[in-house]
Amino acid sequence: MFNDFKITEGRPVYIQLKEYLKRMITNGHLLEHQKLPSTRELGSLLSISRNTVLTAYADLEQEGLIYAVKGKGNFVSHVEIFKSPSIQLNWTEKVNEQTFLADELDLMKHGVRWNKEMISFNSIAPDEKLFDVENFKRAFLNRMSIEGDIVLNYGYAKGYKPLIEYLLHYMEIKGVDTRNKDVLITNGFTEGLDIILSSLNKKSGRVICENPTNDSALKLFRLHGYEIDGIEMENDGVNVSQLETFLSKKEYDFAYLIPSYHNPTGIVTSSKKRKEIMDLFSAYQLPIVENGFNEELRYSGSHLASLASFAGQGNHVIYISSFSKILFPGIRVGWIVADKELIYYLESVKRARTIHTSTLDQAVLYQYLNDGYFEKYIKKAKSVYKKKYELTVHYCKQYIPFKRITGDGGLHLFIELENHIDSGKLLEKCYQKGVVFLPGNVFHTDSSGNHTLRLGFSRLKEREIIQGIKIIGDTLKIIMEAKK
Amino acid sequence: MFNDFKITEGRPVYIQLKEYLKRMITNGHLLEHQKLPSTRELGSLLSISRNTVLTAYADLEQEGLIYAVKGKGNFVSHVEIFKSPSIQLNWTEKVNEQTFLADELDLMKHGVRWNKEMISFNSIAPDEKLFDVENFKRAFLNRMSIEGDIVLNYGYAKGYKPLIEYLLHYMEIKGVDTRNKDVLITNGFTEGLDIILSSLNKKSGRVICENPTNDSALKLFRLHGYEIDGIEMENDGVNVSQLETFLSKKEYDFAYLIPSYHNPTGIVTSSKKRKEIMDLFSAYQLPIVENGFNEELRYSGSHLASLASFAGQGNHVIYISSFSKILFPGIRVGWIVADKELIYYLESVKRARTIHTSTLDQAVLYQYLNDGYFEKYIKKAKSVYKKKYELTVHYCKQYIPFKRITGDGGLHLFIELENHIDSGKLLEKCYQKGVVFLPGNVFHTDSSGNHTLRLGFSRLKEREIIQGIKIIGDTLKIIMEAKK
Repeated sequence: MFNDFKITEGRPVYIQLKEYLKRMITNGHLLEHQKLPSTRELGSLLSISRNTVLTAYADLEQEGLIYAVKGKGNFVSHVEIFKSPSIQLNWTEKVNEQTFLADELDLMKHGVRWNKEMISFNSIAPDEKLFDVENFKRAFLNRMSIEGDIVLNYGYAKGYKPLIEYLLHYMEIKGVDTRNKDVLITNGFTEGLDIILSSLNKKSGRVICENPTNDSALKLFRLHGYEIDGIEMENDGVNVSQLETFLSKKEYDFAYLIPSYHNPTGIVTSSKKRKEIMDLFSAYQLPIVENGFNEELRYSGSHLASLASFAGQGNHVIYISSFSKILFPGIRVGWIVADKELIYYLESVKRARTIHTSTLDQAVLYQYLNDGYFEKYIKKAKSVYKKKYELTVHYCKQYIPFKRITGDGGLHLFIELENHIDSGKLLEKCYQKGVVFLPGNVFHTDSSGNHTLRLGFSRLKEREIIQGIKIIGDTLKIIMEAKK
Repeated sequence: MFNDFKITEGRPVYIQLKEYLKRMITNGHLLEHQKLPSTRELGSLLSISRNTVLTAYADLEQEGLIYAVKGKGNFVSHVEIFKSPSIQLNWTEKVNEQTFLADELDLMKHGVRWNKEMISFNSIAPDEKLFDVENFKRAFLNRMSIEGDIVLNYGYAKGYKPLIEYLLHYMEIKGVDTRNKDVLITNGFTEGLDIILSSLNKKSGRVICENPTNDSALKLFRLHGYEIDGIEMENDGVNVSQLETFLSKKEYDFAYLIPSYHNPTGIVTSSKKRKEIMDLFSAYQLPIVENGFNEELRYSGSHLASLASFAGQGNHVIYISSFSKILFPGIRVGWIVADKELIYYLESVKRARTIHTSTLDQAVLYQYLNDGYFEKYIKKAKSVYKKKYELTVHYCKQYIPFKRITGDGGLHLFIELENHIDSGKLLEKCYQKGVVFLPGNVFHTDSSGNHTLRLGFSRLKEREIIQGIKIIGDTLKIIMEAKK
């Protein structure tokens, strides 16, 4: 007895002993009224101090698991260890269709599994080696010293007030007219979109968006039962005349657009096209959900206004964003900027579902932004990603026989191969050579994207980028040769 | 011009200047090709250093908002400030019924508004003055030094692995058989319940629970369209024979129970009753959603096993909990322990909706728990809350002419008044005297609770508790006198 007690480092020993004994009592290995060894005995048996045993016993007594008899020692209390008849439900029979769909569309579960030795172009997460952890710590300590107890207690569904004010100001600087607008803080972009989809009336049950578009939005549209019409992407943004044709023929509940560094094509919609798009949606009185994705990451070039700023005093744009592709996605903070009235409703949906987003995360992010660390960080991030971007483009052009390559910067490129090439099959071959990427079909609203692929380069080292692209190119050439 | 530029403390001045100018450019107050003052001029005009202006100008140039002409100075770039025709949608017409319901059931919006000068028995949040902010900081710095960059990047939908393992072990110590079980980390208890409700098949569309029960669960049942049958609470838990009658008459999709410090009644279900309840549900093969609410806060008394531990190897209990009523609710971390197969599905729903819960929050909580700070903190918290509990009970008995009072500890008490007393009307009168509490009707599955109220004492000072209870009692006596 007691010889399977093992001490793990980094956790107080009295707690480990207490938990060990508690477990023996609750699972019936120590019986009611059984006498425990004296503190001296147990200490010597386990080679720990007698005081440690004393503290553990005192805690167990306080929790009602053991009792002390003066002059006699410590004994196990009466503990109900009765188990009710064990029943086995078949949970697969108990979950609904939507849940099966969520499982089926779960790329993390069903996508190609890769390991750390491989070169993966899958990710468009930021490179964590760029994070200025020191300034993040500073922001944390700074905020905690200002209002640590407040930050750790319940907050408000709408969000942490200083952050809300910061973001309203931030959007104003971007040219957004924030009068009659408000902010809701969410657990990242994804929760923002999910709350909107859960809250809006489904009238036509149809959404119009770019084709391809980002997979997590597509997944949510499908889970919410929307029909999806996708409009083809030209090099300066969506095909506006095709968009107009669709709008004139069918009713839509809303449009979903990613004007900057569009995921997956990497295309930045031109200013001219933004105006055309906005005029069109004004004419059709159609709400737009704008994904502010990576707007902050523009390496250079002239200033581009978001659709939300083009809307002026209009209230039909719902702007959702987060810094998650640039800064600290591990803290899940995103935001929605929209009409005050709409935010009023969304706030209640947010409260019903998750009460509020972590106040700690919001407060530290606020401090980090306000102290100006973000400004410094984004400069460094831009220059690093720009270099990687240029390298990736250069070697794609050199090694990969593509039909079209798009991507104006950001964290990824998109490649269209000859129509008869299946990028899924290409992936299978590349996988064997230690390289993975995302086949483009998961981004498409229809079955048109089998010959496309997305290359995320943000987390790769330069030599990995070059080596990976060469392998993809060489493998592709072999496939093309065989098809001839 | 430039005379409305005002410097706020705590944010680098060059960023403030840059943002000020950016805003003037994006909203058209500075026109294309307009010459900006020289850095020397602007510095002297605004009483800031020339270097500050230089840095701001350099950033603006990099963002494409201004351009420099050698020897001539800085000029405003071409910026599209076109606004599309402003359209106004009526968003109230665009949100769905469920959203109206979420708004209607939103107590934070529609409950009685109170201010900080008042004595509020509304809250059952922990008292933030108890938080050991210093140890929380220590846990943060400790974790950041171990893997700061990992913690700040994307994590996994299921949760942060060390925390998952910690919680599995933690449940084991409580006596739960964790073989074939798994953990999903959620944004607090509320997201856990919402994910479960979203994932389970609605067959009968009916849920059975204690009456009264906690309002946020009731809200979610209603939002998910469930019919709710409530079983009356006796002093040692739910009325088992009434429970049996209901189960024998109607089909239910699942039961929802809060065995410890039941919210709102504060009742701890006895061990005997837990066994009876479990036997009953085993016989009916009915899933149970167990709310582990405040289990950790038992002041004293014998060990009580959770329903999840009574289930043994059975897989029909879905246990949801969080530390939010005890420890740091500002970080939104809760967890579900359930059958592996069910967690497999819930994971995909979680991923589709919020990607994952903040890795930072999970990692710091893990470190805080693992370092043993929680053990120390809970001892202090228990002793403080126990004192407040005893004080509240004492003065309720002295001042309030109730029919029944329940609450075995925890953070709140529940009071039943004579049937003809409307606690909403009592609240109105008390409000005028600076005291608020929660009328009990919001916790009821039916219209039976108008004469009940919940008193949360966790965040009040002793003298506030005494004074508040006296005011409630005196006001009640006046109402009762008038009714005679």
